[in-house]
Amino acid sequence: MQDLLKRFWAGEHRALARLISILENEESGRDELMRQIFSQTGRAYILGVTGSPGAGKSSLVDRLTFLLRRRDLKVGIVAVDPTSPFSGGALLGDRIRMQEHAVDQGVFIRSMGTRGSLGGLANTTKEVVRAMDAFGFDWVIVETVGVGQAELDIMHVADSVVVVLTPGAGDSIQTIKAGIMEIADIFAVNKSDLPGADKVALEVEMMLDLHTAETPWRPPVIKTSSVTGAGVEDLLSAVEKHRAYLMEKGLFQKRREARLRSETLEILDRQWQQLVRKEMKLSEEVNGLLEKVARRKIDPYTAASSILDYVVANSNLRSKKEAGAG
Amino acid sequence: MQDLLKRFWAGEHRALARLISILENEESGRDELMRQIFSQTGRAYILGVTGSPGAGKSSLVDRLTFLLRRRDLKVGIVAVDPTSPFSGGALLGDRIRMQEHAVDQGVFIRSMGTRGSLGGLANTTKEVVRAMDAFGFDWVIVETVGVGQAELDIMHVADSVVVVLTPGAGDSIQTIKAGIMEIADIFAVNKSDLPGADKVALEVEMMLDLHTAETPWRPPVIKTSSVTGAGVEDLLSAVEKHRAYLMEKGLFQKRREARLRSETLEILDRQWQQLVRKEMKLSEEVNGLLEKVARRKIDPYTAASSILDYVVANSNLRSKKEAGAG
Repeated sequence: MQDLLKRFWAGEHRALARLISILENEESGRDELMRQIFSQTGRAYILGVTGSPGAGKSSLVDRLTFLLRRRDLKVGIVAVDPTSPFSGGALLGDRIRMQEHAVDQGVFIRSMGTRGSLGGLANTTKEVVRAMDAFGFDWVIVETVGVGQAELDIMHVADSVVVVLTPGAGDSIQTIKAGIMEIADIFAVNKSDLPGADKVALEVEMMLDLHTAETPWRPPVIKTSSVTGAGVEDLLSAVEKHRAYLMEKGLFQKRREARLRSETLEILDRQWQQLVRKEMKLSEEVNGLLEKVARRKIDPYTAASSILDYVVANSNLRSKKEAGAG
Repeated sequence: MQDLLKRFWAGEHRALARLISILENEESGRDELMRQIFSQTGRAYILGVTGSPGAGKSSLVDRLTFLLRRRDLKVGIVAVDPTSPFSGGALLGDRIRMQEHAVDQGVFIRSMGTRGSLGGLANTTKEVVRAMDAFGFDWVIVETVGVGQAELDIMHVADSVVVVLTPGAGDSIQTIKAGIMEIADIFAVNKSDLPGADKVALEVEMMLDLHTAETPWRPPVIKTSSVTGAGVEDLLSAVEKHRAYLMEKGLFQKRREARLRSETLEILDRQWQQLVRKEMKLSEEVNGLLEKVARRKIDPYTAASSILDYVVANSNLRSKKEAGAG
């Protein structure tokens, strides 16, 4: 592990890829790795890009990446597809388009699907973003298909969120309904060369008129074309403007602090679950209670309360014994 | 609450609706309600129906419900739409089709969206199914849009799962990829009057040839039309056959026992989280550690370990004090 970290700090892409695999597969030593890289995190700007399948998110991210590279900024990309069973750098079809970046040491792309992220995609995504941050990327872009609540949760890792809509998809209003309104900091109306782009942009502006009166930041609506590249500079400017807004209002710091707090509580829950699993291996008591539920002799709620009391009392006893022995 | 339960046991639909709202909104007394109805659960047969948006799931469930009602079986329906912000009986558009059942006391329909299910849709769905089971429905049908992993998780509540595919949607193979292969007990190729239905059925059979050699149950592929009703009797027969298979092999009992065990562990985690929240209110210690993480003075992993130790030691101390005082 120390060898892996050495190569990680030396900037080896393969060491980063290996570390991400450890996170995805929940291999042992994962928490220790995250602990060791923590001090180097918190410096990257994290951009979320979400939208329906086929909205052209990947191409748009590709275009943004080129612009950032031109400014000599290093970019890490996490492409999350909750409907794909595949994980790993080269497996997703649309990643082929990104091959132009392949020889560029300033860009790293990782695709993540449902497989290879046992602890839930949202949780693993957070850790992968953190790893890329520690590795030294100036920007980390998280790209995901916005279908359900789980996918919206992934976006909570980002400092700024771009929601990508398209004309004629018929789903613009549908998508906005599904809670996306609340997470969007910027709207991109992509495929703006197609008829109906103006209509979609207008619809979004009308929804914004209704919803954002109470907040000081009104999400700008930018028309883009990932094919011609039109509007992508404007999109990046809009992101920069949002970043400046967050910094100025102290929201950037505030949000990141809140995120660290809630992440700690999530890690706490995982550690608790590990403790329960350990007690299940060491004692008959917990298994006996689960067995009683399975045979419908007690209800799950009563059993859970008894297990909670038991694990708390017992792990306390164990740690006292260990302390006494040591 | 005792009044609510009295009306619930008397078979009042409005009491069931109220109880479900308590589950969805995590109102206080929820666990106690679940505890009280537990002994009356475990009798309904639980059928899952999933598929892409627009596959005609609701109409198919409608048709199945009519067949079950003809046999004088009572049917509860939970329509889960993870992309919808709406919850409640009458809000979803496609539920209008079900109005024919509205005067039938043997049918109860509940729509659930992202809102009004704070503890996660999969978790709430389980409890709503349990409530309908206790209420006395012979069948509970859970209908959901199969988009992400979270939606597949919902299907784990069911005894039998029907995956609905359609010709020409272009997503049949896509859908099968997304882990649906593993949860399908029966395939319905709906809209079988459209061209391409035979092709989809053939594709599924070919995938089954590759995948199910090792399991004794090969999912049948049934062509249906929710418009004409063709094939729906066959679909119900296929479900009955699967049910008989599960019973015969002892799998029905085995699966339900495993489910009760894992549900107990989920409830345990929720109770643990409540304990942590309680400690956060009562003590400065936990908040102090979270504050240190927010200021990046310690990493989240170290903080989580310390909080775990603290909550375990302290809640133990508190319960001893309470026992001493009592």
